Amino acid sequence: MEILLLQSEEQALRLEKVRGIMNEKKIDALLISDNANKYYLTGRVFSGYIYLPLKGEPIYFVKRPVTMKGDGVVSIRKPEQIAESIGMVPPATIGLELATASYSKVERLLRIFPQSELADASMVMSAARAVKTAEELEKIRISGIKQDHVYRKIPTLYREGMTDVELQVEIERESRLEGCLGQFRINGDDMELYMGNILVGDNADVPTPYDFAMGGEGMDPSLPVGCNGTVIKPGNSVMVDVNGNYTGYMTDMTRTYYVEEIGDLARKAHECSIAICRRLAELGRPGTEAKALYEEAEKMAREAGLHEYFMGHRQKAGFVGHGVGIEINELPVIAPRSRDILQENNVIALEPKFVIPKTGAVGIENTYVVTPDGLKPLTNTPEGLTSLT
Amino acid sequence: MEILLLQSEEQALRLEKVRGIMNEKKIDALLISDNANKYYLTGRVFSGYIYLPLKGEPIYFVKRPVTMKGDGVVSIRKPEQIAESIGMVPPATIGLELATASYSKVERLLRIFPQSELADASMVMSAARAVKTAEELEKIRISGIKQDHVYRKIPTLYREGMTDVELQVEIERESRLEGCLGQFRINGDDMELYMGNILVGDNADVPTPYDFAMGGEGMDPSLPVGCNGTVIKPGNSVMVDVNGNYTGYMTDMTRTYYVEEIGDLARKAHECSIAICRRLAELGRPGTEAKALYEEAEKMAREAGLHEYFMGHRQKAGFVGHGVGIEINELPVIAPRSRDILQENNVIALEPKFVIPKTGAVGIENTYVVTPDGLKPLTNTPEGLTSLT
Repeated sequence: MEILLLQSEEQALRLEKVRGIMNEKKIDALLISDNANKYYLTGRVFSGYIYLPLKGEPIYFVKRPVTMKGDGVVSIRKPEQIAESIGMVPPATIGLELATASYSKVERLLRIFPQSELADASMVMSAARAVKTAEELEKIRISGIKQDHVYRKIPTLYREGMTDVELQVEIERESRLEGCLGQFRINGDDMELYMGNILVGDNADVPTPYDFAMGGEGMDPSLPVGCNGTVIKPGNSVMVDVNGNYTGYMTDMTRTYYVEEIGDLARKAHECSIAICRRLAELGRPGTEAKALYEEAEKMAREAGLHEYFMGHRQKAGFVGHGVGIEINELPVIAPRSRDILQENNVIALEPKFVIPKTGAVGIENTYVVTPDGLKPLTNTPEGLTSLT
Repeated sequence: MEILLLQSEEQALRLEKVRGIMNEKKIDALLISDNANKYYLTGRVFSGYIYLPLKGEPIYFVKRPVTMKGDGVVSIRKPEQIAESIGMVPPATIGLELATASYSKVERLLRIFPQSELADASMVMSAARAVKTAEELEKIRISGIKQDHVYRKIPTLYREGMTDVELQVEIERESRLEGCLGQFRINGDDMELYMGNILVGDNADVPTPYDFAMGGEGMDPSLPVGCNGTVIKPGNSVMVDVNGNYTGYMTDMTRTYYVEEIGDLARKAHECSIAICRRLAELGRPGTEAKALYEEAEKMAREAGLHEYFMGHRQKAGFVGHGVGIEINELPVIAPRSRDILQENNVIALEPKFVIPKTGAVGIENTYVVTPDGLKPLTNTPEGLTSLT
C-alpha cells in the first residue's frame, strides 16, 4: 500500500505552494496531522503525521492503517517516536496546526522539538489550499456536475403534504445514490451540520448559533440548524442547500423552490440574488479585494430596497461568500472586514440570500473558480425560482 | 428565548457532578466552549462560552443566536469581552478544554485570565459526563427504541444484487424518517464517519486509519472507512453499525445479516460474540475494572480458538467497548491498559467483533447501562445472525 495517491507531479505542485509560503513566513518545517491537510498533501487520509521540511523529502509517520509501508513511511505507535526514529536536525522553527490541533496535542508535539520556535502551520496550509491546482479544479467540477444531477431531480421528489425534513431525506437519498460521500468537512470545531440545510417558510427566520449564512430551528436542541418539521405549504419558499461532496472536494450550491405560488417580494429578492451573483462574477478577478465583492452585494441589496432581508432578517450573517474545497469554509472569505485578495484558481461560493417574513428564504448560491475573465460557475442548475409541482 | 432547556433541578444535578470533580482537582472555574459540553450544561448548543465558577451561578457569554437573552446571559461579539463585561475576581486556576479546543483558541482565552493557572476542563467534563443522570438515561433509552425500530426493518430493505452502499442508503433513509438527527458526534478531530458503517465480505478486512473497531475501504480515499461498493453475495456477512442519535444522545448497536448461507466459522464467531456480551454483562458492575472486561472478552475469544479473528484480522482494534452519550467515544474505555473503573450509570457499548476472511465481519454490539445487578441492555434487537432473504 503506497502512501501517495497523488501523482508525484501533482504532489510537487502542492508542495511548491506550501513551501513558497513557509519560505515567506520563515518556517523551516511543518508537522501536519489534520485530516484535510494530510489528504491535500498525499491524496489520502491516514492516522499519523507528515513532517515536511522546507528542503528535502517529506516523511510520513503512520500509526494506522498498519498495512501502510513504502518510500518515506515510518511506522509509529505514538508521536514521541518521531524524534527517536530519525536523526532529524531540529528545525529552527516548527509549524504546527494551531487553528485545528487541540492545545494538548500541540503541547505534546512541541516536546518533540524542544529547541524549535513554534509557528502556525494552519495559516500556511489554508493559504496554499486556497489556490487550487488543475487536478483539484477537476474534482470540484465533477462534484458540481453530480450535485446538478441531484438538484434537477428535486421537483420529482416532492409530494403534497411533505414536511421539510421528509423532502430533505429524499434529497439525501438521491445525493447518496449519485455518489455523495456524506461527510461534510468543516474547518474548526464549532460548526456542525448534517448533509445540508433545507429551509421552508418562517423557519428560515429562526436564528442559529452556527456561523452559516442561513439558520433554522433544527429538529432537536442538540443540533439547532435547518429543518424543523414544517409542512411545505403554498406560498412558502423551499431553500435547498445540500452537501456537494462527491470527490473529497465539495461544491456548494443553493436553489430555491416553491409550491403553487410565491409572493412578489420574494420573487424580487430572488431576482436580486441572481443579479448580485452575475455582477460579482464579472467583478471577481485575480487582484479583486474580497471585501469589494461584499460591498457591491450589500449595495445592490440596499438599492433594491431589500436591505432588511439581506443575509437574514432577525439575525444576519456577516459574509456573502467563502472559499470551498476539501472543507466548506476555506479562504478567501467574502466579508466586510476581509483582507483577502482574490487569486487565480481560488474557488469561492457566493450566496447572497434573503429571508422574507411569512415566505421564507430565497436566493441562490453558486461555486465559482476565479479566472482572469471573472468568476466561472462550477454549479450549473437553472437559477430561477422553481415550482415543485 | 431562555438559555436553559434543562429543568433547573436537572442542571443542578449535572453542575454538582462537575463541581465535585473541580473540587477534587482544585480548579476554581471552567470556561466551556465545546458544543457537546455546552449541550450537557444547558440542554442546547449556542455560540459562546459558559463560565462556571466552583461557587456561584454560571454566566453564559453568548455570541449567537443574537436573540438569546435572559438570566445569566451576557451578549458578546468576541471572547475578550468576557473580562470587560463582568467584574470577575480572577480564579486562581482556570479550566479550559485542552483536549478539544485548538491551541490558538486556548492561547486567546488564556489572555482573559493572565493571573490564573491553566488546568484541563476536558478531563473534568468527560469524567462528569461519563455518569449519566436519569434524564440522560431516558434519552438514551429512547434512542435505543428508535434504533431498534430501524434495525428490525433492515431485511425488508434488502434487494438481490444490492451493493453495500445501496443497502446503507436505504438504512440511512429509514433512520432519518424514524427521527435520526444524523449528526454523529465524536470527541476529537481525528475521527470521521458518515452515518455509520456497513461491512460486506472481505471489505471488513481492509484496515482503516480511524480508531473504530472495524474498518472498510470506503468509497473514496478522502474517507477511507466503511462501504466500498461490494455487491452483497450469498455467503457474505453484512455487518450493520449505524448512527443511533435520535435525541442528542446516542445508542451504539451492531447486528449482522447474511444472504442465503453463511459458513460455520462465522456462525461460531457470531455465537462467541453474543456469549462475550452476556458474560461481560454479568461481570460489569460498579467497581469492576474496565480492563478486566477486556481481558475476559479476549480470553473467551482465545478459548474458542478465534483469537486471530478477534477485533479484526489484518489490523486489530485495541478495545472492546467504550462509553456512549452525547458523543460516541466517551468514558469509560474498555481496553487492556484502561485505568477506568465502572461506575453506576455509566453507559457503555460493547462490541466484541470478529473478521472472518472470505466471509466478512460478524458479531454484535449493544449499549448498556451499568447497574448494581450488572449491565442492562438499552439496544434490544434480536442478536442472532439474521437472513436478509
